[in-house]
Amino acid sequence: MAVNLVIPERNTIYAVPGVEIGITAAGIRKKDRPDLTVFKLAPGTTVAGVFTTNRFRAAPVIVCEEHLGARTSIGALVINTGNANAGTAEQGMVRARRMCAATAQALGIDAQAVLPFSTGVILEPLPIDRIEAGIPKAVSGLSAENWYEAAHSIMTTDTLPKIYSSRIQIQGKTITITGISKGAGMIRPNMATMLGYLATDARIAQPLLQSLTREIANQSFNRITVDGDMSTNDSFIVMATGQSELTIQAETDPGYDELKAALAHAAKDLACKIVRDAEGATKFMTITVDDAGSHEEALKVAYAIAHSPLVKTAFFASDPNLGRILAAIGYAGIADLDVSKTRLWLGDVLVASAGGRDPNYQEEDGQRVMREPEILVRVSLGRGAVSETVYTCDFSHEYVSINADYRS
Amino acid sequence: MAVNLVIPERNTIYAVPGVEIGITAAGIRKKDRPDLTVFKLAPGTTVAGVFTTNRFRAAPVIVCEEHLGARTSIGALVINTGNANAGTAEQGMVRARRMCAATAQALGIDAQAVLPFSTGVILEPLPIDRIEAGIPKAVSGLSAENWYEAAHSIMTTDTLPKIYSSRIQIQGKTITITGISKGAGMIRPNMATMLGYLATDARIAQPLLQSLTREIANQSFNRITVDGDMSTNDSFIVMATGQSELTIQAETDPGYDELKAALAHAAKDLACKIVRDAEGATKFMTITVDDAGSHEEALKVAYAIAHSPLVKTAFFASDPNLGRILAAIGYAGIADLDVSKTRLWLGDVLVASAGGRDPNYQEEDGQRVMREPEILVRVSLGRGAVSETVYTCDFSHEYVSINADYRS
Repeated sequence: MAVNLVIPERNTIYAVPGVEIGITAAGIRKKDRPDLTVFKLAPGTTVAGVFTTNRFRAAPVIVCEEHLGARTSIGALVINTGNANAGTAEQGMVRARRMCAATAQALGIDAQAVLPFSTGVILEPLPIDRIEAGIPKAVSGLSAENWYEAAHSIMTTDTLPKIYSSRIQIQGKTITITGISKGAGMIRPNMATMLGYLATDARIAQPLLQSLTREIANQSFNRITVDGDMSTNDSFIVMATGQSELTIQAETDPGYDELKAALAHAAKDLACKIVRDAEGATKFMTITVDDAGSHEEALKVAYAIAHSPLVKTAFFASDPNLGRILAAIGYAGIADLDVSKTRLWLGDVLVASAGGRDPNYQEEDGQRVMREPEILVRVSLGRGAVSETVYTCDFSHEYVSINADYRS
Repeated sequence: MAVNLVIPERNTIYAVPGVEIGITAAGIRKKDRPDLTVFKLAPGTTVAGVFTTNRFRAAPVIVCEEHLGARTSIGALVINTGNANAGTAEQGMVRARRMCAATAQALGIDAQAVLPFSTGVILEPLPIDRIEAGIPKAVSGLSAENWYEAAHSIMTTDTLPKIYSSRIQIQGKTITITGISKGAGMIRPNMATMLGYLATDARIAQPLLQSLTREIANQSFNRITVDGDMSTNDSFIVMATGQSELTIQAETDPGYDELKAALAHAAKDLACKIVRDAEGATKFMTITVDDAGSHEEALKVAYAIAHSPLVKTAFFASDPNLGRILAAIGYAGIADLDVSKTRLWLGDVLVASAGGRDPNYQEEDGQRVMREPEILVRVSLGRGAVSETVYTCDFSHEYVSINADYRS
């Protein structure tokens, strides 16, 4: 049911020099399903990450931040599906550390050089024994060519794998960017249950990589929402192995802007793929708010529309019941909003102006746009010059089915 | 599908001396369906109201506030279903005033003494000609005994009428309290698409009635949520006809506390009936947050839980997937929340403590509570002594069906 989600052909997915990936089926929740993934990173790789702001953040998220903050160079990632190791208190911390220790042992590196990730059901103990047994198996299959398989092995309720890969020239040097992501429900900014991993063979100094990661996350993974439920486990990681000839030490270095744009493009692609494969989604919606007085108020309005169950069900039905969008704009929390200055477009159709239905609006025009699988909703607030864009999907029977049945 | 919604027997619904109600089928959206209701109030009745804070508030809401603010004594209410007269700009204002003028003419009172209300689809022109034609018919049928019929005639996607009626003794005097409400979707606090009308034959001075109305709304209609969508039209009106022997001029007058408690009880009953009959609801959930540091943070947590589509679908499935509640507590926006001090109960079952699953929690205990049609979710934040309670429902296939089909 995914909406226009493109999976690159296997032979167009470029390995990133310096990154090897191993996968196994550890039986964490289901038998014979790949559920454990290890990334091995070449020495000298810089790594940056942004993580959920949920106060019930999962144990692996806490450990990730600890290890990244310790400025140890990072040599590996270990990722399990089937269990989020969240809401697991001290036991969860112990088990997240055991994941790191087992990976470190298999690779002959320090446990602090390992970042752990878990995704799946919350509030249940992590089956650490099965994970410890699986890690050496995953490591034994390490290969640079495993991105496609990794995109599958990190899936939970995803119906399709999410991969991005490109090879570009910057400053006359060939750079590879390849990444994967997962997530379909409990998706909302800051961050979205979602894992994203993006690797390049450019060399980028830490902490520049950290600021770059935050910046591109704010235009990609932090601008998507499926259901407004912010996860306990969201993590987005960027790895720069430095195996190519391009080296970036500072924002002013030649090639930085091009590299940032390319990584931002990759992050946005991976983030939007999560929305395209969102639980039950049949429509992909881009919500743009223009002429706002601030980024904050633009985002308030965009998310009010993107989170409204009434708006989302109307899109599911292809019903141009656009008063629901006006209602959402009205309750978004801008106390002095002058509704007579707001305008609303559906695609290229001006629906509302001057506080009401536009005189030229014809329902059949709205209907035509609503039938499309990709829809642009654009609002002008008439208050300033700031714009923000958020990506979301519709709300279908299938969403309820998936989430009513998820654990059973 | 409504959850334990009790409709009082017709012979237990007490007329309120000073209130007469007339109803007709004006053909506003559907033929032969009662859709136009007029309340006639005896001279001397005081009236107070609270209204939606949506910036796209409907024309009738603006007119209501204008007429109430003008301190004219209010002599009538006129209510139509089938069209919200919202998102209708200046034309909507003109038509809301025409509703008042037509009612005033039929009753021989001033147009400023009429409060207009509309509920239904947004962004479509109000069919004012049909309403003007219907008003004399509604007025010709005025009767004190029409509360039961009025509860029906204000319904939109409601499946059942919502009525409360009681007769009590205060200070040795007999007081009647009768009210009706409507609403099933686009329901969220401040206010909830909902109309509520509560009448008593006590005499209560304005502006005491206004402060009392706001106070009881904040513990009833402003504490319910179905889908988090705040309507453009919400209105809650309290009428005090003064036809009984009880007169209240000030908060310190004997009987005020009892009367306030009785009106608050009635308002809470009518508000909770909206949740019980919410679109697609199969469960009624009471979300109580205890030991908060402030009302604001208690409400943030309560609404984060109440609005989470993942929590609501888990309740629909009777699946104690309680990590979803922890996730919602975690993203509710309390930046310094110490999760190790939070506790979560489902009914009488302690589910989580010290930041994780409680050691004594057994899934079958959670399962037992989840199967009930009425469920108490209780959170202790361990930060202070403030409590707040919010009422909501689960999220079912039926909600999606109703809202995908509403206009078709």
